[in-house]
Amino acid sequence: MSKWWIENGTFVTMDKAQPVVRGHMVVDGDRIVYIGEERPQEADAISVRIDGSRRVYMPGLINTHGHAAMSLLRGFSDDEALQTWLQDYMWPMEAKFTDADVKWGTSLAVLEMLKSGTTTFVDMYDRMDQVAQVVERSGMRGVLMRGAIGLCPEEVQREKLAEAVQFAKDWNGAADGRIATMMSPHAPYTCPPAFIEAFVQAAHDLDLPMHTHMSETRAEVEQNLREYGLRPVAHLDRLGLFSRPSFVAHAVHLTDEEIALLAERGVAVSHNPASNLKLASGVARVPELLKAGVAVSLGTDSAASNNNLDLFDEIRLAALVHKGVSGDPTVVPAMQALQLATLGGAATIRQPELGALKAGLKADFISLDADQPHFYPRTDIVSHLVYSASGRDVRDVWVDGRQVVQGGVCLLLDEEKILAEAEACYRRLAGA
Amino acid sequence: MSKWWIENGTFVTMDKAQPVVRGHMVVDGDRIVYIGEERPQEADAISVRIDGSRRVYMPGLINTHGHAAMSLLRGFSDDEALQTWLQDYMWPMEAKFTDADVKWGTSLAVLEMLKSGTTTFVDMYDRMDQVAQVVERSGMRGVLMRGAIGLCPEEVQREKLAEAVQFAKDWNGAADGRIATMMSPHAPYTCPPAFIEAFVQAAHDLDLPMHTHMSETRAEVEQNLREYGLRPVAHLDRLGLFSRPSFVAHAVHLTDEEIALLAERGVAVSHNPASNLKLASGVARVPELLKAGVAVSLGTDSAASNNNLDLFDEIRLAALVHKGVSGDPTVVPAMQALQLATLGGAATIRQPELGALKAGLKADFISLDADQPHFYPRTDIVSHLVYSASGRDVRDVWVDGRQVVQGGVCLLLDEEKILAEAEACYRRLAGA
Repeated sequence: MSKWWIENGTFVTMDKAQPVVRGHMVVDGDRIVYIGEERPQEADAISVRIDGSRRVYMPGLINTHGHAAMSLLRGFSDDEALQTWLQDYMWPMEAKFTDADVKWGTSLAVLEMLKSGTTTFVDMYDRMDQVAQVVERSGMRGVLMRGAIGLCPEEVQREKLAEAVQFAKDWNGAADGRIATMMSPHAPYTCPPAFIEAFVQAAHDLDLPMHTHMSETRAEVEQNLREYGLRPVAHLDRLGLFSRPSFVAHAVHLTDEEIALLAERGVAVSHNPASNLKLASGVARVPELLKAGVAVSLGTDSAASNNNLDLFDEIRLAALVHKGVSGDPTVVPAMQALQLATLGGAATIRQPELGALKAGLKADFISLDADQPHFYPRTDIVSHLVYSASGRDVRDVWVDGRQVVQGGVCLLLDEEKILAEAEACYRRLAGA
Repeated sequence: MSKWWIENGTFVTMDKAQPVVRGHMVVDGDRIVYIGEERPQEADAISVRIDGSRRVYMPGLINTHGHAAMSLLRGFSDDEALQTWLQDYMWPMEAKFTDADVKWGTSLAVLEMLKSGTTTFVDMYDRMDQVAQVVERSGMRGVLMRGAIGLCPEEVQREKLAEAVQFAKDWNGAADGRIATMMSPHAPYTCPPAFIEAFVQAAHDLDLPMHTHMSETRAEVEQNLREYGLRPVAHLDRLGLFSRPSFVAHAVHLTDEEIALLAERGVAVSHNPASNLKLASGVARVPELLKAGVAVSLGTDSAASNNNLDLFDEIRLAALVHKGVSGDPTVVPAMQALQLATLGGAATIRQPELGALKAGLKADFISLDADQPHFYPRTDIVSHLVYSASGRDVRDVWVDGRQVVQGGVCLLLDEEKILAEAEACYRRLAGA
């Protein structure tokens, strides 16, 4: 596709130089080539124009932690103690998952994410070839990894590692670069040290970043101390994981020293407020992480523990919860909350070409219908996006310069079929 | 309008006998006359039928605390310390409010609330005749009161009381009973004891319930102790406020003894989680209040401190926050969270004909578009409504048996005009 032009829009750029632009944006292929208040110079030569006057445009949201296929288990079990939820509900169901379940569960998640304005998501699961195929077809951008639990015989461990390596090799850079891969041991409490070290070595060999769960619950931190004499941050540091570009999910229970070490090692954090609240894990120390200079981003976690994948909900939660818990209404102000889901996401997944609307960056962006009561009056559009917007306000989505959602409808996915197939998968899983 | 029938719908009734009915509902005038799995007996005689097969129906939501006209100040000032926010931003702007500002600010709020599924709202403000006229026109149900601050000369106090009494008399039972009135001294820290007592006396004389702000911030509780030697609950109890049917907003900072006294006096609590978090007031002890048998409901507070009026956001927050803060994932389970916004609301405002779908009750109810990815798979519709739904999923709204929103469009309000007028009011206020 040649150049095209959005006229007279309101653009929340996330670019510090000019956070809100009322004007114009030009896209050429997969890139933004112009954004500014003035009409583009070559205006007359651009034939494809979109009237942006009733829309707000912003960078596509980046969801930095999740397990998409678990959307099949949305609402299957809620409000249970964590171990009951996992052992009696989640694990027995997941053990029954087939390729088709991962395909349709992931499709359901991708559908929900795209329609609610997420253009890039991180996925840690297994049967990842299925996930990658869905991402390829959907037009979405994905950072994908085979998440491996190491509580198994060494032979199975080796198979899992080999599978993770093969997937990472096969798919890194695929789908015109929309797919990136990482190496991901599941968590310190589910992976023996040697298993984690093997993943670190593989990540070095493949020159890939790493991702893992860390310090989600207090119990898990205490277990780490008992078993290894170290808290999780020091433990993972000793195993070399932070020698790779890396990021951790949750990081709810951190000491000051751990925050300082994460900052020193350049480890990013995926903050998952809804999941952490719902599972009663606690509230991550986000204001302190940000103060220490740690890159923080937002993740939904899976729809089984959230139970939705609308990143606008996480943005609002991040802006609200830390004020209420700290007693300081000035922490995580609106612009910072929006940064978590955009620039913070890009920093977390090490893709600096994402997360902002700026000439030269990737054309991953969304439009919202601003002609609704909750966006009035026109006081502060950033505040409205954080405190009032919902993913249901998203009308259009572009990834890599290509439109994938138009007027709320996914262009590359068969919505009706996905809903029906996901439902059929769940019925079979629940009935079997 | 004569009888009409919703066929083949999914009804979340909130009725303990059968919380979810897949079947039929018949409305006659302002009442629900039948709900059940079987076709209604007089089926053939009912000519008006609605196909409910792609919808979920539930009682209209009840927003038990707010200041609708302050929607004009949405996003005008965020992320500030409470006193800065009030003294430097809110109060100077509110001092400039005219009748027109209250009219259009309230209209903006009513529009947002109706479209997001709220059918009844509590409003405490001034220039209440304007508010009542908007409610009358909109088709919505309102519990309205002149909220009076008593930090003024006695003569002005007397004027305010007279105004509150006159409004309460003029409008109680108006708009075919859709409007109820209450008496409302603003708060213990803004009203001298004698002023509160005068309101209590007037409420006795008029036989009306009472509403006030209470224990929103720690500072306010400490001030009460300093000035009166009592915490707010004992203070209001001594002034006789709890001798009336009454409810308080916020109630964030409560001791066990205060919770017990609220329960004993039958005082209900309007829990405002978003506002309490955003203003960093803290987290109300909702699990303890519920355990003690206090009727708890949900309020948005104003759009200046929330910043939206979508009660589904409050429902989800109520279900999430108390788990995260208490460390117990079983508190405020999904059904209880939904009860807060329905049956809890009805109990709070003392209107037992609202809050459930049941033969004999008022026909105040809403439909949501269930054909969306975040409502799949069909595991648990109550969980989906609490953890995944948004006000933007609401398609139709009926109040008192009359349809007021159809396919997302308000039937009795001119949306375009309201957005334009609210914007003009804000421009004038900000520029003056």
